[in-house]
Amino acid sequence: MLLLNLSIDCVVLGFDKDQKIKVLLIKKFINERNDFQFALPGDLVGVNEDLLSGGKRILESLTSLENIYLKQFYTFGSPDRTKHKKDQSWLKMYRQQPDERVITVGYIALVKMEEYIPHPSSFAVDAEWVELSMVSKDLAFDHNLILEKGLKYLREQLDHQLISNLLPAKFTLSQLQRLYEILLDEKLDKRNFRKNISKDSLIIKTDEKQQGVAHKPAHLYTYKS
Amino acid sequence: MLLLNLSIDCVVLGFDKDQKIKVLLIKKFINERNDFQFALPGDLVGVNEDLLSGGKRILESLTSLENIYLKQFYTFGSPDRTKHKKDQSWLKMYRQQPDERVITVGYIALVKMEEYIPHPSSFAVDAEWVELSMVSKDLAFDHNLILEKGLKYLREQLDHQLISNLLPAKFTLSQLQRLYEILLDEKLDKRNFRKNISKDSLIIKTDEKQQGVAHKPAHLYTYKS
Repeated sequence: MLLLNLSIDCVVLGFDKDQKIKVLLIKKFINERNDFQFALPGDLVGVNEDLLSGGKRILESLTSLENIYLKQFYTFGSPDRTKHKKDQSWLKMYRQQPDERVITVGYIALVKMEEYIPHPSSFAVDAEWVELSMVSKDLAFDHNLILEKGLKYLREQLDHQLISNLLPAKFTLSQLQRLYEILLDEKLDKRNFRKNISKDSLIIKTDEKQQGVAHKPAHLYTYKS
Repeated sequence: MLLLNLSIDCVVLGFDKDQKIKVLLIKKFINERNDFQFALPGDLVGVNEDLLSGGKRILESLTSLENIYLKQFYTFGSPDRTKHKKDQSWLKMYRQQPDERVITVGYIALVKMEEYIPHPSSFAVDAEWVELSMVSKDLAFDHNLILEKGLKYLREQLDHQLISNLLPAKFTLSQLQRLYEILLDEKLDKRNFRKNISKDSLIIKTDEKQQGVAHKPAHLYTYKS
């Protein structure tokens, strides 16, 4: 019989005014000399906690971020995912049984960065938005893999529920296209983009147009609720 | 500290010559009077087993199906998912600690039914393809939910790796459209379907055409490997 521990790790991606994607990382001390390591916000799930509630509690406990729409994207269960030497020191400080197997469920979120100012707490000594190109290759456990898989999920799915958090309630197709281009890191053809969007039954044209713009005002669109 | 058990449940969908989708269910005795229950093929993961290997081993051990492409789609972690009265009897027969929490990772597969003849073994006393409309509402644990979520995943993703198992190496667009229509349970417009497929960089037009058909032979397509 296998008994193991269950954790949740959160890939929280923030979108800033410069339209760059950053990821929320925590910093944690891995020994009493205060050597540190960066990690995705994550921790063990409670005895009677369901996964989503656990994800929200853990994210809030480490970074103070509340009311974030989290979506499950993948579960990581390699038997040796916590066995790497770089992680042993932290595990010995914080876990009663540092050798036990831990599987982790990955949750992803996408937020406007300026609306969420993280504050570290619990074992996080810092919590900060880090540009993707600046992320350490030595995150805790398999967190580099989890981050990579989360970004892949985001790009492959372009999930409306995740993306709608980054837009005002009503938006123009140019705004939407710009957002897709940043997420996909690729220029999109305007005509094809609009044709595809017009087939998407979850994006609805409203009767309203932009106001107070110098150019010809564009139609406003909204997500079907 | 939470210690729990980890299982894998497989939603194996078969496509038969009548072009209906069926799901592979096992039958298990839940007491010594041989009362039974149907379930998705699933069992606990081994101590040092990674998830995908575990899924393959479990599927084979219960149904004898080998070499099946399994794809992870969702993890089910409700604390009470194994606590239902209908499941207690089986748990007491087969688990050392029937009360322990079990989270389960759902894997999905899509196969040509005639190529996979299931044979029950281990605690499965039968293994059979069941039409979706005939599936019991009382599957073990939360397996009705897992099946529903698996079907939703399949329809939302139309994942090429899953779908390509149902097609010959080279296929016509009519074959592909018919398959999509069955999976989606909805008629598709031929023109739009072809336009969308033409934009899909993973489906490639070959130089070959159908042979031995009475009508004008159609071009053959293939999946990019």
